[in-house]
Amino acid sequence: MSQGVSLPLGFRAGGHACGIKADPHKLDLALFVSDTPCAAAGVFTQNLVVGAPVKVSRSRLPRQTARAVVINSGNSNACTGDRGIADAEWMTATVAAEIGATAEDVLVCSTGVIGRFLPKEKIAAGIPAVAKKLGTTPDHLEAAAKSIMTTDTVPKVVTRKLTSGGKTWTVTGVCKGAAMIAPNMATMLSVIMTDVAISSADAHSLVKHAVDRSFNCISVDGHTSTSDTVLLLANGQAGAIPAELKSQLQTTIDDVAMALAQLIIRDAEGAGHFVTIDVHGLLTREAAFRIAKTVADSALVKTAITGNDPNWGRFVSAAGYAGVPFREEDCSLSVNEIPLYREGAPVDFDANAVSQAMATGEVRIVLTFTLGKESVRFWTSDLTAEYVRLNADYTT
Amino acid sequence: MSQGVSLPLGFRAGGHACGIKADPHKLDLALFVSDTPCAAAGVFTQNLVVGAPVKVSRSRLPRQTARAVVINSGNSNACTGDRGIADAEWMTATVAAEIGATAEDVLVCSTGVIGRFLPKEKIAAGIPAVAKKLGTTPDHLEAAAKSIMTTDTVPKVVTRKLTSGGKTWTVTGVCKGAAMIAPNMATMLSVIMTDVAISSADAHSLVKHAVDRSFNCISVDGHTSTSDTVLLLANGQAGAIPAELKSQLQTTIDDVAMALAQLIIRDAEGAGHFVTIDVHGLLTREAAFRIAKTVADSALVKTAITGNDPNWGRFVSAAGYAGVPFREEDCSLSVNEIPLYREGAPVDFDANAVSQAMATGEVRIVLTFTLGKESVRFWTSDLTAEYVRLNADYTT
Repeated sequence: MSQGVSLPLGFRAGGHACGIKADPHKLDLALFVSDTPCAAAGVFTQNLVVGAPVKVSRSRLPRQTARAVVINSGNSNACTGDRGIADAEWMTATVAAEIGATAEDVLVCSTGVIGRFLPKEKIAAGIPAVAKKLGTTPDHLEAAAKSIMTTDTVPKVVTRKLTSGGKTWTVTGVCKGAAMIAPNMATMLSVIMTDVAISSADAHSLVKHAVDRSFNCISVDGHTSTSDTVLLLANGQAGAIPAELKSQLQTTIDDVAMALAQLIIRDAEGAGHFVTIDVHGLLTREAAFRIAKTVADSALVKTAITGNDPNWGRFVSAAGYAGVPFREEDCSLSVNEIPLYREGAPVDFDANAVSQAMATGEVRIVLTFTLGKESVRFWTSDLTAEYVRLNADYTT
Repeated sequence: MSQGVSLPLGFRAGGHACGIKADPHKLDLALFVSDTPCAAAGVFTQNLVVGAPVKVSRSRLPRQTARAVVINSGNSNACTGDRGIADAEWMTATVAAEIGATAEDVLVCSTGVIGRFLPKEKIAAGIPAVAKKLGTTPDHLEAAAKSIMTTDTVPKVVTRKLTSGGKTWTVTGVCKGAAMIAPNMATMLSVIMTDVAISSADAHSLVKHAVDRSFNCISVDGHTSTSDTVLLLANGQAGAIPAELKSQLQTTIDDVAMALAQLIIRDAEGAGHFVTIDVHGLLTREAAFRIAKTVADSALVKTAITGNDPNWGRFVSAAGYAGVPFREEDCSLSVNEIPLYREGAPVDFDANAVSQAMATGEVRIVLTFTLGKESVRFWTSDLTAEYVRLNADYTT
């Protein structure tokens, strides 16, 4: 994983096993610190039931003076009432004391089981320990990325560089997420760091745009989590970028977010197929999005994919209950570039050829309508017996 | 199954294996005939992509002169364009010729794989054969109920009787459904027959009310099918009912529909748990319904139930993304009468006791809000590796 990833200038990262997870050797506490104040913004879950860390971090953003993000895995500190909020605030104050900042300049995320109070003694010992392990190498970054994993099987880090006139700006994101993945927010936790100099208002607009095209376009199981958070921290250590590169900066951040979102789908719990759904030809992007998400969330679509089964009636019928008006004659479908359904009627096709194409593990579903010009691209995974096993056995 | 079930006066039923299914010995063609004209009404899928039989039957209802319902399993005749409609109309005309009726007085349903044309020769031979097998005994009724099964493991028939002043009226329903089960319509196919004398307008209002409290309150996988149909046929052979029994008639039909809907959930594909979800204390029934359905459709809720895991954060967080405004402090949760979450904060509970209660296979989730007086009751199943296996292997 460490190939080609690096921290932006002035950022340090670290990970530590403080014993929150059942296996005491598993990393569970991550810290990301900027040596200087950052412009920071965040996008959070739209669930009404949110974790205490979401409430605390959300209330502090956007801001110009953020210094650090602390993340524990193994316990989401969600549905824990006032005590949970006090615990999350205490985590930020403890980190602040360690790095010489104020508590309000520290952001906090937690991921893991819902409804249990944080083990404070373990975290109280863990924070000084992880602060001692901070560093700037890819190994430090990897340790931090591993510390935020729950059922993820691989750490997820993406770095992109933007260069111009001999200058280089770096954007690096980490994320976790393997279930409770659905749009608004689509996720999971992610921290994106950059050394670009921007305002917190710019940071907010950049991260919102990126999330709408990445984490909000993936779904594993349609379950919007209580803890979803994407944070962007920009410390400015590589300086401002020229005005003509502003849109390239957005594209770079979009690209990091999209690459991270796809890593989540590739590592979705129990998944055997990576599925890209393109919906074309709607009057609005929202309409295309609703159809894509409905197809992605159908258990029958997912299990057809699990079985490499070109049972296309499931795909078309899922579109039919998405709540977007269309006539069957407006709709055509292809799977891995092979047409299966055209303008409301079945097409003769070689079922074995489609099945073999699906068996590669990469499935591309294209639903084309004749109603307008708007499109959306969405990513999802299949639904396997292994997903069921993982989620039937997760707690207690 | 035949215990206690019977056909209402003047109805005959039959089933036949005409070779639509891969196994030529499996029943796949059902016929229900009234000797005299019936008041008839129906409720159909809300999917925009609907089977040809839905289009044909829907266009003929409500009516005062219905005589028969013909149903094949093994092929849904959906997504089959104009040819599919011609085939469905041909089925009704063929039945009409056999029983001495007009085609418009015959209703048609098909269930099975989507996107394949009907095997007309097999059905052409099958219709006279099933007509010869019509009869009035519970065995005839059972044969018809078996002929509409797809992945169902048991036939589903319910009879209720209403008696007053020495008179008896019978309401008997059959249904099928094991997946692609979600509200609007919640289902599946069902035919409910009665010998009560009512108008077709009454029939429409009775069936609509019953469906809203039964088939529209169940979900296996959240996938609204293309073929869902509930038909009510009333031939009047037991005469009119006294005005003071009208509401009892509604209750009787509701009860038949609810019992059939619960049979579908008990026979849901791969299911190991029967789950009842009660949502109380909302401002509107619609709000309660949205929360119940969102909890029921969550793969994480379902798999927690599969594992007998009182992982209640999944239940509460599913409510949180149902799109119904509430605060965490408004919400409490119990599972099998044991409180787990009260007014936004966790309750100490004996996880083993809850898990053992869930392991009985009967799970009762009660979500209580403090926002109003409206409630809803909803039924669902768990999500098992067996569901995945069944649906990854269903066609091709």
